[in-house]
Amino acid sequence: MDEFSLIERFFSQPNASAVQANSALQQGIGDDCAVLRVPQGKELVFSLDTLVAGVHFRPDADPGEIAWRLLGAAVSDLAAMGAEPNCFTLALTIPQLTEKWLQKFSQQLSLAAAKYQITLAGGDTTKGPLTLSVQVQGFVEQGQALLRSGAAEGDLICVTGSLGDSRAGLELLDVERANEAQRYLLQRYYRPVPRIATGLLLRNYASACIDISDGLLADLNHILQRSGVGAKLSADSIPMTDAMQQVAVANALQWALSGGEDFELCFTVPAIKWPALQQQLQQHQVAISTIGVITAVKELQIFRDGQWHTIAASGYNHFSND
Amino acid sequence: MDEFSLIERFFSQPNASAVQANSALQQGIGDDCAVLRVPQGKELVFSLDTLVAGVHFRPDADPGEIAWRLLGAAVSDLAAMGAEPNCFTLALTIPQLTEKWLQKFSQQLSLAAAKYQITLAGGDTTKGPLTLSVQVQGFVEQGQALLRSGAAEGDLICVTGSLGDSRAGLELLDVERANEAQRYLLQRYYRPVPRIATGLLLRNYASACIDISDGLLADLNHILQRSGVGAKLSADSIPMTDAMQQVAVANALQWALSGGEDFELCFTVPAIKWPALQQQLQQHQVAISTIGVITAVKELQIFRDGQWHTIAASGYNHFSND
Repeated sequence: MDEFSLIERFFSQPNASAVQANSALQQGIGDDCAVLRVPQGKELVFSLDTLVAGVHFRPDADPGEIAWRLLGAAVSDLAAMGAEPNCFTLALTIPQLTEKWLQKFSQQLSLAAAKYQITLAGGDTTKGPLTLSVQVQGFVEQGQALLRSGAAEGDLICVTGSLGDSRAGLELLDVERANEAQRYLLQRYYRPVPRIATGLLLRNYASACIDISDGLLADLNHILQRSGVGAKLSADSIPMTDAMQQVAVANALQWALSGGEDFELCFTVPAIKWPALQQQLQQHQVAISTIGVITAVKELQIFRDGQWHTIAASGYNHFSND
Repeated sequence: MDEFSLIERFFSQPNASAVQANSALQQGIGDDCAVLRVPQGKELVFSLDTLVAGVHFRPDADPGEIAWRLLGAAVSDLAAMGAEPNCFTLALTIPQLTEKWLQKFSQQLSLAAAKYQITLAGGDTTKGPLTLSVQVQGFVEQGQALLRSGAAEGDLICVTGSLGDSRAGLELLDVERANEAQRYLLQRYYRPVPRIATGLLLRNYASACIDISDGLLADLNHILQRSGVGAKLSADSIPMTDAMQQVAVANALQWALSGGEDFELCFTVPAIKWPALQQQLQQHQVAISTIGVITAVKELQIFRDGQWHTIAASGYNHFSND
């Protein structure tokens, strides 16, 4: 099987109907380039993400799970911009053209792509150590992308869903007969769900937005840096599931603040827009938590056990328990 | 040095002025996604390419040379669509964050980007076996992209420049004191020059176009397959430099037909458009060769040593001398 017949069989054919249904995509796999017509009045947003075997997943990981994590994590960047997904490209570097691996991978990639309404538009297949990059592409109304740079003093800081679940899932990879709570956490690790619909809702309300891939503190800090502001957080408001806390025991808050890979959205909202947004979110049954407020002082502080703690930049990735 | 300060130092800062000067690019490195405003009446064309250490280049290759090959080969796909380059993303997977390597690589990448008028817009840096992917993005007038699928019976088949040089360069990698001819061939290997300006000229004339990355026969075959036609070539018309022929000796034609990585353009032109195109090409001093003609019979034939040879599909990559 050469590269061309491989691409044809595992990637072109399964996606032919999706390409047909995508009115923006003029040319998919099979030419020197793909061709995309961005709808009038819209802008293209795009992000490139890489997963490496032995670094981001175990070399023997199920190829289907790799496909879901790869695409879920990448599409999450579109959600963080308030964009609607449109198409993506795949750079697949693989040691050998193993039919079984490719079969599983491409099948699950197709399912994930269908779920997130994003069409495979092209890519490159090369021989080498297992490494996967995807570039996801989506559309926003001109000038309406949710950037990291718009947070201002007094804005509320919110997060979607719950934090630390993916970190707890990582702890359970070797559990043989997972119970329901453990299965939930493993699912949160294996199949991050990009908050696409929430991102779209936020467009008229949020002043800044980011997806939580490196951990809440690290990612919130990107907003603070780009916006030139600080923040005060309340530890008691950080959303954590019972399932996560049971696994984490004494580390629950640490995992929620620094665990990473939850792919929830962290965003800021001007107080004046809060009531209208809250109504929207309730109407769409979106669970969010207000966890703090933006300050003019360029510091990150957290209120915990009755007092304020200032968190140094070095603490974003290794928030200590003491 | 963490990932963020690395990106800031080696990629964001050196490219800040290029981002500023790119009126289509609304947001470059530093947010969840980059944001691009495609000019009205234009379409986006994009292509993703990967180079792997130990497969596409020696692991100890000069990082500057890797940068030039990576970007040159990728931009060549834009040239083959008749597109003007606009911006690109980089997925850099690297075993260690070696300052010296990154310094050299990013500096030469900047120079290559400036030469090809393409702006670094974002990417991802991860730890792992040295692997580099770039997605290049450009613009064409709506519906004007040069596809592989438009070749028709009677169209002339042309190529730019000369073929087999890169293959000859590969043979010379270990030469210590290269003479002028050898330096030329090494340059052809290390720094493929995408035929951007020629691609733009071809837009109103060519019926199909592809860049030669896998070798003339393999790539021309993509045009034949997608267009549902065949071709007759004349071996004597295949453009080869003296420098290449000196290195190749008995293999010259084989290298020219199947060597690959020359990144010249192979295109077809309806006979009726040929005189006007020829005038355009002469006016712009673009060297091209007419090497054959498109046929209705779906076969690839080549005239050599006084007779026609039919080339089987298996022969595209291993064209034999007998």
